[in-house]
Amino acid sequence: MADCVRETVRQMTAYVPGETPANAGAVKLNQNESPYPPSPRVAQAVREAAGNLSRYPDSPASSLRAAAARLYGLAPDQVMATNGSDEFLRILYQASAGENEEVAAFYPSYTYYRTLAAIQGAKYRLIDFTDDYNLPASLDLSRTRLALLPNPNAPSGTLFGAGDIVRLCREAKNGLVCVDEAYADYAGASVLGLLAGPDAPPNLVVTRTFSKSYGLAGLRVGLGFASAGLMAQLDKVRDYYNVDRLAQAAALAALEDQEYMAGTTARVVATRDRAVAELTGRGVFVWPTRANFILVRLANAAEAKGAYEWLRRKEVFVRYFNAPRLADHLRITVGTDREMGRFLDEFDAWRGRTRTIQSVPPG
Amino acid sequence: MADCVRETVRQMTAYVPGETPANAGAVKLNQNESPYPPSPRVAQAVREAAGNLSRYPDSPASSLRAAAARLYGLAPDQVMATNGSDEFLRILYQASAGENEEVAAFYPSYTYYRTLAAIQGAKYRLIDFTDDYNLPASLDLSRTRLALLPNPNAPSGTLFGAGDIVRLCREAKNGLVCVDEAYADYAGASVLGLLAGPDAPPNLVVTRTFSKSYGLAGLRVGLGFASAGLMAQLDKVRDYYNVDRLAQAAALAALEDQEYMAGTTARVVATRDRAVAELTGRGVFVWPTRANFILVRLANAAEAKGAYEWLRRKEVFVRYFNAPRLADHLRITVGTDREMGRFLDEFDAWRGRTRTIQSVPPG
Repeated sequence: MADCVRETVRQMTAYVPGETPANAGAVKLNQNESPYPPSPRVAQAVREAAGNLSRYPDSPASSLRAAAARLYGLAPDQVMATNGSDEFLRILYQASAGENEEVAAFYPSYTYYRTLAAIQGAKYRLIDFTDDYNLPASLDLSRTRLALLPNPNAPSGTLFGAGDIVRLCREAKNGLVCVDEAYADYAGASVLGLLAGPDAPPNLVVTRTFSKSYGLAGLRVGLGFASAGLMAQLDKVRDYYNVDRLAQAAALAALEDQEYMAGTTARVVATRDRAVAELTGRGVFVWPTRANFILVRLANAAEAKGAYEWLRRKEVFVRYFNAPRLADHLRITVGTDREMGRFLDEFDAWRGRTRTIQSVPPG
Repeated sequence: MADCVRETVRQMTAYVPGETPANAGAVKLNQNESPYPPSPRVAQAVREAAGNLSRYPDSPASSLRAAAARLYGLAPDQVMATNGSDEFLRILYQASAGENEEVAAFYPSYTYYRTLAAIQGAKYRLIDFTDDYNLPASLDLSRTRLALLPNPNAPSGTLFGAGDIVRLCREAKNGLVCVDEAYADYAGASVLGLLAGPDAPPNLVVTRTFSKSYGLAGLRVGLGFASAGLMAQLDKVRDYYNVDRLAQAAALAALEDQEYMAGTTARVVATRDRAVAELTGRGVFVWPTRANFILVRLANAAEAKGAYEWLRRKEVFVRYFNAPRLADHLRITVGTDREMGRFLDEFDAWRGRTRTIQSVPPG
């Protein structure tokens, strides 16, 4: 049996996301979901669409793409709707990277990129960010078929400027450059405008998701953006009926309620900034975040792991990455004010306990 | 830009399914959808699940897989839930076939298999069925990484026995054998039982869909089945959150209402058998179908194409394949009795018109 499966798949390990707490009452701050429900228009749209499920959905998701194109000042044939932005990412790998060809990502960044490279059998190259999460001076992307950069970056929350993206597109001239804008609504910044003009970088691809700012992680809808010519190629790789009727209707309703999305996003940003101030006020280092999560640096890996486990026992779930440059950090999704209060209370309790233990003289 | 995309993708053409009529009142018999809505329990399940969309779905779709395992007498770790069975098929390609490795399918059969091979960059080999849609005496599958067979076959509707499947598994011993049971509920026959015992072929994979007998084409849910060991490998390739909350809830509700599914399936089969009798009574050759569609042979390609276009003008949409062995055929999805009456009326009108034209003496 085993040799019916490709070597690259046999050797790889599956992706591991943040865990789902068993207790529904737990404070879940480990997957960057929105703490708020989606626009109330979504439930109405789902109810209406649920009356007709026996026919295949509209394969190109025309209404959703047209609405997204209007919103971002692009043409509908520059837009693809996908089963979460994960599907769009996977399409990029399948469309660009042959076996043993190079896919480049940065470090520390979103780890799912490695999983997708392993599935594709592509060569995965990690380029270290500078110590303060900037692009290094030298990149050498001439052999890269696909380069990926979340903006804001995860898990740091730091934001790159359009100049950085244009530079990537120029340097990775024999491949695609994907800017993963999963958290862009929280930053109030985007490079989608680069795709509008006649000077659009021909290899630039941008992805968005409804899983974060629109509060629809449960529904799996993403959007991909590129030039019309490139999109026509990418579209051949899309599973033909990839976004179902309910998801199309819900995403359209959510997209058309920009006021609601702006409101919940502003609440998350305000809560985030208060939480950052609270942590900074305690002398804790926090990376300057433009996303809906906070990357906090503790004294060392033992402290970070200890804090993670303490919080977990108190039913506050945050993210711990046992990996270089991250092992002394925690990543905390921004929840409601109440949830962040719970986090800070337990964090303070852990710090007090740690200090107490540390202050006990040895022996 | 163009050379950012792999050669195999640039060269391929996108999959073309049956068209969607512009007029909602048209008779749509071209995509093998169910003419009946899903179980009424589905709408209720969707309403309940729609209250919680801001959190990611259960990645392994545990409840749905457990219910499917119970229904088919298998273990939950032998089951995968996917975004339509198309996603499961795509996973099989990614898991088994490297670039230029052989994927084998039969002819005439489901053409999406070729699209998936092109995306993967695999070598696609078509093996002709015998004239009466049986497997040929000689197969030579020793280099095949993945062999695919719909059962019942599409577009012929003919059914293979378990002995044929066991033979395929034995001959394609260095690859996977996928039996695509999209239409199995209409046949009342399945090879899923082969996966239950200790002598299960280690390379056998079976796929099912909710798009046909469960009336949920609009929702995109499929199921894949294999040995637990093989499934653990295939699961690494699955998009992590591939089936959304609403689709999981709807599919579970549909699966648990077997009585409803059996009822609508029986109605389709009864309508099908009446339509076959009507056509046969007119002296038209019909392949012995076990699915929810009928493959009809006309005198020649010009007649088949003429009938297709006549029907289309009358807003009766059936499927015409301009391809070897099929160009003189029409494939008609079984709709309601009323829809099949419309089809037969227009088919008769076309035949009458054709005969009248033919009976006009030349010159």
